[in-house]
Amino acid sequence: MRVRGTVEYLGTKWAGWQLQPDQPTVQGELERALAIFTRSPVRVHSSGRTDAGVHASGQVIAFDVADDTDLERLFLAVNALTDKSISIVDLARANDAFDPRRHALSRTYEYTIVNARPPSPFLRDRSWHVIAPLDLEQLQRLARMLAGEHDFAAFRAADCESPSTRRFVTESVWTRDGAVYTYRVSANAFLKQMVRTLVGSMVDVVVGKLDEETFVELLGGGSRMLNGRTAPAAGLSLVRVEYPPELEHA
Amino acid sequence: MRVRGTVEYLGTKWAGWQLQPDQPTVQGELERALAIFTRSPVRVHSSGRTDAGVHASGQVIAFDVADDTDLERLFLAVNALTDKSISIVDLARANDAFDPRRHALSRTYEYTIVNARPPSPFLRDRSWHVIAPLDLEQLQRLARMLAGEHDFAAFRAADCESPSTRRFVTESVWTRDGAVYTYRVSANAFLKQMVRTLVGSMVDVVVGKLDEETFVELLGGGSRMLNGRTAPAAGLSLVRVEYPPELEHA
Repeated sequence: MRVRGTVEYLGTKWAGWQLQPDQPTVQGELERALAIFTRSPVRVHSSGRTDAGVHASGQVIAFDVADDTDLERLFLAVNALTDKSISIVDLARANDAFDPRRHALSRTYEYTIVNARPPSPFLRDRSWHVIAPLDLEQLQRLARMLAGEHDFAAFRAADCESPSTRRFVTESVWTRDGAVYTYRVSANAFLKQMVRTLVGSMVDVVVGKLDEETFVELLGGGSRMLNGRTAPAAGLSLVRVEYPPELEHA
Repeated sequence: MRVRGTVEYLGTKWAGWQLQPDQPTVQGELERALAIFTRSPVRVHSSGRTDAGVHASGQVIAFDVADDTDLERLFLAVNALTDKSISIVDLARANDAFDPRRHALSRTYEYTIVNARPPSPFLRDRSWHVIAPLDLEQLQRLARMLAGEHDFAAFRAADCESPSTRRFVTESVWTRDGAVYTYRVSANAFLKQMVRTLVGSMVDVVVGKLDEETFVELLGGGSRMLNGRTAPAAGLSLVRVEYPPELEHA
């Protein structure tokens, strides 16, 4: 049977989601634990890769196990066998056709910035420490420009191989709680490092390192040589992936 | 001159606040950094000790330095010299008589519980993981009983040496955000491990390990042999200490 799960991970010590031969990855760690429990190799699929150091509170996975598998025992065993930086939050039988990458309707990421002179001991692994004062109003104005369909060719990694660079952004908001600024963005899909390049560019506009006019022009589809910084991986977290309910559940 | 500062620390790796000869402590780490900057020994006073593994986002400290000390340079140097799990948030000249322990009007602690089957990778060092389902209403009802003046003799560490066991609690509330339960408590002062014993006892009542009648009786001043568990240090954080403004500032 096909099983669907939600996974949380603190990405700090992992070389990203995707399996790599000589590096510890979240996929590798989950497959290792599942193989111990099922006594056979298990391939774990996800909604998408996350980069090295990126976190998730709502990554969605799917894998196949024998029909008579006790999912309650599997849940307890895998949580006990994986590193403490990874937790399976829930598990349930899914539609046999469920593909967490292809069937995702939208993905939501959150990016956390600590805007204070000293870094925060509590959020050190989970945020970008920006010392230059930020302006919530200005960040909000820039974020609102991102909503809707745009060509994000200028906001992606140099090695991004996606053939199409148009994406539809359904939510793009900054909020603030004291020194902690959070950017929340949802889209049908994202280009490689798109959120980190958008955050780095918005911050660069606010601190005066990038012209707002250039930022606006880049949204029309421009060269990634002109964009702002790529914000550090530590601040980014995949928080939610949405699916058609009939595929998610058996 | 006397200087007042606010300090944040992740207590996980420290043997508590107070200086100990052969153990790493927060006080020891701050005194080490200050001595490097001032080139002479500096004694750091605080609003009170925190136990091994307990955190702080609002610990208040005071120390004396030469009158011509550049506090801006000291702030940058000490933050650069201390371990990353400790940050000085602010520093200012204080009244020469300012004593952060004796002059404190009130202290506020927060205790964090993650109430879910799998532990949270993000809050692992900063929470108590309770699997048995909690009930916010019942926790709230127990917490309200703690407000006001009580004899907390039953809610303290076995080696607590305080001669008086009466304390005045001005705030005692539970809140919930998804799986995260937070208990916030303010009092003029606290007995050793008072917050952790209160939290452990309230949770024990809710999960059925301690009679509510016993809990209520213990509030009248009873034996600590009858109370509930002492909740783990990792969930506790000192968040705020209040002073008369005329003493805090020069």
